[in-house]
Amino acid sequence: MANNKITKRSEDFAKWYTDVVRAASLADYSSVKGCIVMEPNGYAIWEKMQSILDKEFKKLGHVNVQMPLLIPETMLQKEKDLVEGFAPEVAWVTKGGDKELEDRLCIRPTSETLFCDYYKDHVSSYKDLPKLYNQWCNVVRWEKETRPFLRGREFLWQEGHTIHANKEEAMNETNQMLDVYYDFFHNYLAIPSIKGKKTEKEKFSGAEYTLTNEALMFNGVALQAGTSHYFGQTFAKAYDVKFNNKNNELEYVYQTSWGTTTRMIGALIMVHSDDNGLVLPPKIAPKQVVIIPIGDDEKVTSLTNKFNEELNAKDITTYIDNSDKSPGFKFAEAEVNGIPVRIEVGKRDLENNTITIARRDTGEKYTESADINIVEYITKLLDTIQNDMLERATKRRDELTFEAHNLDDMKKILDTQPGFIHAMWCGNKECEEKIKEIKGCKSRCILENEKSIDDKCVCCGKEAKYLVIWGIQY
Amino acid sequence: MANNKITKRSEDFAKWYTDVVRAASLADYSSVKGCIVMEPNGYAIWEKMQSILDKEFKKLGHVNVQMPLLIPETMLQKEKDLVEGFAPEVAWVTKGGDKELEDRLCIRPTSETLFCDYYKDHVSSYKDLPKLYNQWCNVVRWEKETRPFLRGREFLWQEGHTIHANKEEAMNETNQMLDVYYDFFHNYLAIPSIKGKKTEKEKFSGAEYTLTNEALMFNGVALQAGTSHYFGQTFAKAYDVKFNNKNNELEYVYQTSWGTTTRMIGALIMVHSDDNGLVLPPKIAPKQVVIIPIGDDEKVTSLTNKFNEELNAKDITTYIDNSDKSPGFKFAEAEVNGIPVRIEVGKRDLENNTITIARRDTGEKYTESADINIVEYITKLLDTIQNDMLERATKRRDELTFEAHNLDDMKKILDTQPGFIHAMWCGNKECEEKIKEIKGCKSRCILENEKSIDDKCVCCGKEAKYLVIWGIQY
Repeated sequence: MANNKITKRSEDFAKWYTDVVRAASLADYSSVKGCIVMEPNGYAIWEKMQSILDKEFKKLGHVNVQMPLLIPETMLQKEKDLVEGFAPEVAWVTKGGDKELEDRLCIRPTSETLFCDYYKDHVSSYKDLPKLYNQWCNVVRWEKETRPFLRGREFLWQEGHTIHANKEEAMNETNQMLDVYYDFFHNYLAIPSIKGKKTEKEKFSGAEYTLTNEALMFNGVALQAGTSHYFGQTFAKAYDVKFNNKNNELEYVYQTSWGTTTRMIGALIMVHSDDNGLVLPPKIAPKQVVIIPIGDDEKVTSLTNKFNEELNAKDITTYIDNSDKSPGFKFAEAEVNGIPVRIEVGKRDLENNTITIARRDTGEKYTESADINIVEYITKLLDTIQNDMLERATKRRDELTFEAHNLDDMKKILDTQPGFIHAMWCGNKECEEKIKEIKGCKSRCILENEKSIDDKCVCCGKEAKYLVIWGIQY
Repeated sequence: MANNKITKRSEDFAKWYTDVVRAASLADYSSVKGCIVMEPNGYAIWEKMQSILDKEFKKLGHVNVQMPLLIPETMLQKEKDLVEGFAPEVAWVTKGGDKELEDRLCIRPTSETLFCDYYKDHVSSYKDLPKLYNQWCNVVRWEKETRPFLRGREFLWQEGHTIHANKEEAMNETNQMLDVYYDFFHNYLAIPSIKGKKTEKEKFSGAEYTLTNEALMFNGVALQAGTSHYFGQTFAKAYDVKFNNKNNELEYVYQTSWGTTTRMIGALIMVHSDDNGLVLPPKIAPKQVVIIPIGDDEKVTSLTNKFNEELNAKDITTYIDNSDKSPGFKFAEAEVNGIPVRIEVGKRDLENNTITIARRDTGEKYTESADINIVEYITKLLDTIQNDMLERATKRRDELTFEAHNLDDMKKILDTQPGFIHAMWCGNKECEEKIKEIKGCKSRCILENEKSIDDKCVCCGKEAKYLVIWGIQY
């Protein structure tokens, strides 16, 4: 059975992770170095994420577009921070057909330049604003070390790029989209992420500031998953995106961008899964319920069909496993694939008019009457599972959240068990760099609205300005 | 107003086409040569196409995956026909970051190689078959001449790649998927396409045979939109994709691939649109109904809101144009953008308890009671428009369908008015090439189940084997 191959999470977290990815058929390595194949089970999770987020984006007035895959080098070079940030990690197309290109093209690592280049010709008046565009696409970054879903030379994402007639509106958009990500993590992925602002050192190249959605994995390592950038007029100036404002004066637009990627699938795995494979919150599971018939019997068939129809009719995605594998094999397969609920309909159980319902997240099994109102029961159970998963993940996050008042505290914590470390910071890059020397610990985000826990910087002891979460990251 | 810029279709079809693309804000040229920006109006059509086709694919058991964007040259070279077919038109990545690549990578022009490379490690028994995989993605082909949606260096498409345990099943899949395309064209795009088989000369590189969905544009030029290929074991042998069959013998899999692209948007335009801009069949229109309030009045507002809510509640995508433009401007905008139905709710009309409903396709206007059952009325009207559009397109196609019995016939037809030309063919490439000398006229497809119209080949006069449709193509 597939899940026999999974390394224990407590033994080797990294190996456990890739074992789960493989055992649940989410992705496989490809012959193209650093690139994965997203298999049906993995891609279906992405499709579900897309459909939920896309609806949210559209509710807020965003529309989808598609920009080119390729960016001419001369176009990229107009914004120097962006070039410096991305140049070392782009793939270059130098030949089209048999011909060397004069202006070589990079495969988009992100599309700020392309959106600006488009906007500059399509905005002339404040009446044309805001433009609330988003695109779902693939991007390429020539990473040296890669891991399925977490870091790859190619990944799928969405990138929103909006322009506005004034600063306040653009800043509100930046906040709003971070909230969309944060809510998505809490309400769908059952991941209690934390939102905050990146430090100057960690912000996106070219942004005035970057807001971030930070999640903590089961092993205490942090994962940035969802960022929202406020650009002010930086890109607008570099790419000459101007409009006539209400006073009929030429002004540069105010810009934002925000993105989430397939690495959210990595987060899902590393927060919820266990030694038996994938565990998915019901709201993001492409298949929520599996019905497994046991024994060849007319009553069994009729009841499984009835359940299947009733559940699907209420948009609870359900399927019957009618394959010719043994029931034990089917159980294991549903388990490793993270199907939230399993309904067993057995010939013998039906003699007592009972069925068995099992939860993937806890492994609990319930014996219920075969006459149960299945839709009501399963709806409630899926809700319970969703809530319990968020609660357990929150408990785990809280257990792995620490306070440090000096560098010794920090070292001790990181030597024992990494996690979210709350500590005060003076605001100087030097301190950030010194802290990074401790096992690569980085600032995750500045918490702007929380009480300070100390007067002094955790590193230099000088006056503290910010409460910051620190941690080791993927 | 936007539609003032549209060249008359009868004056210059090519210019009219690009004018419509621009006036309806479907796409714009980008600074990246040969690549377009798909704007919100254009991309929304693609999203609608995707959602319909994707549901059809899934109903038939297909699942979506995502393969890498890049293909190592060494991998591509394993199937020589494919290399010969695509090598002149691929973009090459030769540098990743600062490093020259040893094995250069091409951006996928199509993904047969990648699917085979994946399948070879994931299939071992007939129990693993069939694999019915599809992917939605971008591909790059280094075209010299490009036109928005019709031919571009990058385009979006779906490519299905399936493998099967026997020939019959794979051949059925090839047929079935062509039928999906054909039905989609008829039932949604209101385009009376024709299905048939490509000649040896025109089939896909590496395929045993190619089935094609051929549409005829308003100007009589043909457009191939949707092909389905049967590969037999060609690729399986080149990439070593084997399985143990029921007799426990090692056998190569039987393979198909099938695809449709964003050029379907080009077909939609060139079949249905007119001098006032885009005309969309209701079933593919992202927005089906626009409500335009005329005059600032409580009754007007209340009725527009009521209509809007009632229609949207029944999944008729409707919006109110509440912008501060003039009614005339709003009418023109809705017209150029191809909104199938316009409802005008005017203050003065309401004094007589009437509203006006206008059809985009014919321009007809109806005065109706304001108390109308709007859902019933619009549902019926959208159906009528959909049917009428298919009927008109069929009439046009039939008017532009000719018969040729010799090369003189063919020349005469092509000199006067191109179209679908039915003519018999002996099966020899030489004749095909000779016919191509007449204005580039090519075989569109072989009609396998229709009666022959002659005994002799239209070109050489020798015994005819096939009834073929010929035409000039995009």
